[in-house]
Amino acid sequence: MDLGATNVRALLTDGSGRIRAQSRRSHRNDGPGPVLNVVVRTIEEALEGSPPPRGTVGLSVAAQVDPARGLVVHAPNLRWRHVPVGARLGARLRRPVRVVNDARAATYAEWALGAGKSSDDLFCLVVGTGVGGSAVVGGRLVDGAYHAAGEVGHLVMAPRGRKCTCPGRGCFEAYVGGWAIARRAREAVRADPSAGRDLIARAGSVARLRAETVFAAARAGDPIARTLTGMTEEYFANGVVSIANAFNPERIVVTGAVVRGWPRLVRAARQAVRARCQPPAARAQVVLGQLGDSAAAIGAALMARAPG
Amino acid sequence: MDLGATNVRALLTDGSGRIRAQSRRSHRNDGPGPVLNVVVRTIEEALEGSPPPRGTVGLSVAAQVDPARGLVVHAPNLRWRHVPVGARLGARLRRPVRVVNDARAATYAEWALGAGKSSDDLFCLVVGTGVGGSAVVGGRLVDGAYHAAGEVGHLVMAPRGRKCTCPGRGCFEAYVGGWAIARRAREAVRADPSAGRDLIARAGSVARLRAETVFAAARAGDPIARTLTGMTEEYFANGVVSIANAFNPERIVVTGAVVRGWPRLVRAARQAVRARCQPPAARAQVVLGQLGDSAAAIGAALMARAPG
Repeated sequence: MDLGATNVRALLTDGSGRIRAQSRRSHRNDGPGPVLNVVVRTIEEALEGSPPPRGTVGLSVAAQVDPARGLVVHAPNLRWRHVPVGARLGARLRRPVRVVNDARAATYAEWALGAGKSSDDLFCLVVGTGVGGSAVVGGRLVDGAYHAAGEVGHLVMAPRGRKCTCPGRGCFEAYVGGWAIARRAREAVRADPSAGRDLIARAGSVARLRAETVFAAARAGDPIARTLTGMTEEYFANGVVSIANAFNPERIVVTGAVVRGWPRLVRAARQAVRARCQPPAARAQVVLGQLGDSAAAIGAALMARAPG
Repeated sequence: MDLGATNVRALLTDGSGRIRAQSRRSHRNDGPGPVLNVVVRTIEEALEGSPPPRGTVGLSVAAQVDPARGLVVHAPNLRWRHVPVGARLGARLRRPVRVVNDARAATYAEWALGAGKSSDDLFCLVVGTGVGGSAVVGGRLVDGAYHAAGEVGHLVMAPRGRKCTCPGRGCFEAYVGGWAIARRAREAVRADPSAGRDLIARAGSVARLRAETVFAAARAGDPIARTLTGMTEEYFANGVVSIANAFNPERIVVTGAVVRGWPRLVRAARQAVRARCQPPAARAQVVLGQLGDSAAAIGAALMARAPG
């Protein structure tokens, strides 16, 4: 299962991670109780007509988690702190639940079954509303001292730069995360409403501008949207260059709703890695994830079966 | 042994890495043949009066190396490419030589014997003429697909930023490496020669300005030098924040001639990590290396004894 800021996703997979049944619901982000009710309903829907599966349920969350305790330590987008999701959901489902970070789960899935298959030195960068990531180094998924290794969303990309949702400034996420693209677009159309007419019309209002609005307008040739996507490509490329230099992976899998919404990001990153990285880092292949928005849920299922 | 852009260092260590004898020489960076002659002379000096040691010689080089083949693939500051240092030096010394990257060697030494002792999730950042680094993750020194993991000198810190010695722009090293501090100082005094009077007088000429000149002038209160060190602290702190967020280490050991020359960098980084990192990354302890400029040579000796 995958629990995000607005959606819940349930997959039933077989032993090799293939999807046998699935279901999806939105939730209103109104606290752990109501959201976990939606999680239970979604899993019941996905299982309808199937014999009850055995084994551990894997749940990925867009959060800092403590996997050993099944604890969501901090989920900025859900606004949860210290929620024992594993225990609460386990009691409802009457089976063990393994809670994992969503970027780590997506990395695990792309490594096992997707665009990272057969590589032992891999970085997976996930750009959706926020920016997450995780590294496989020498055939092991990297954890970090406090389960947060690979959080490249908070690489500092500009001195005294844009305010992030974290305590920092100038973070990668504050330029390329979905929320940041939307915020940059709102600022741009407020600064020049006549140039922003098309964007505002597409969204309905300035407040309802989203990253997808920008991508749709840019595809239609809107100049202000093209400027925004062009700058996003540049920042994205800088971030991927940093990842290639710092982690020296064989392959960099890029995925997430923003990457799928504006696929030129992949090409921009690939060119930048070749042209601007140090020689050993320039060899990294930049590839699009193969599992789409199912990656985290599939990874959670696989990690629930994995030892350790 | 440690081979840098201007100096060669030889240490004789016992089984636990303690220094029994040592010697140091400068070289003129006039190609592999003459430089390896200096290396051989330095080792002979260090061994004078000692019984000939057994085992493998460890040699750290400020270079991208292929440790399995004993090859210096690319040493930007030595201007060497594809030099089989292990074989050439091994033939001269009549014993096996293990060639390792200097930042990895320093990391290994600080981890085994210094400021990183007893930590299994460690990052060691080395800021000298250039910027290098290496990570210990889950009790293993990280290698990367092409032996260059941890090269955080080429994290992109500013969009369209300063030109680096690598093909990139805006790299961490292009702000805080010793060469970059010197270059920034030369630009500043050229832009305002009257404000730069004290700096120029200390160095003898603009061309001879070095990072150490800047630190000495800043200690004496020179305003332009204080501005330069203040900006260096800010960039350094941004880089350490990025490392803490991306690698999530328990401890970050900072070392190298620039850090020792301007120790306020340690405090600036420590404060920034606490104030500006994500919560799990903000727990990283920032500490000064304990082995000084012997770290790389000690690490090379230890790695020569280590299996694998």
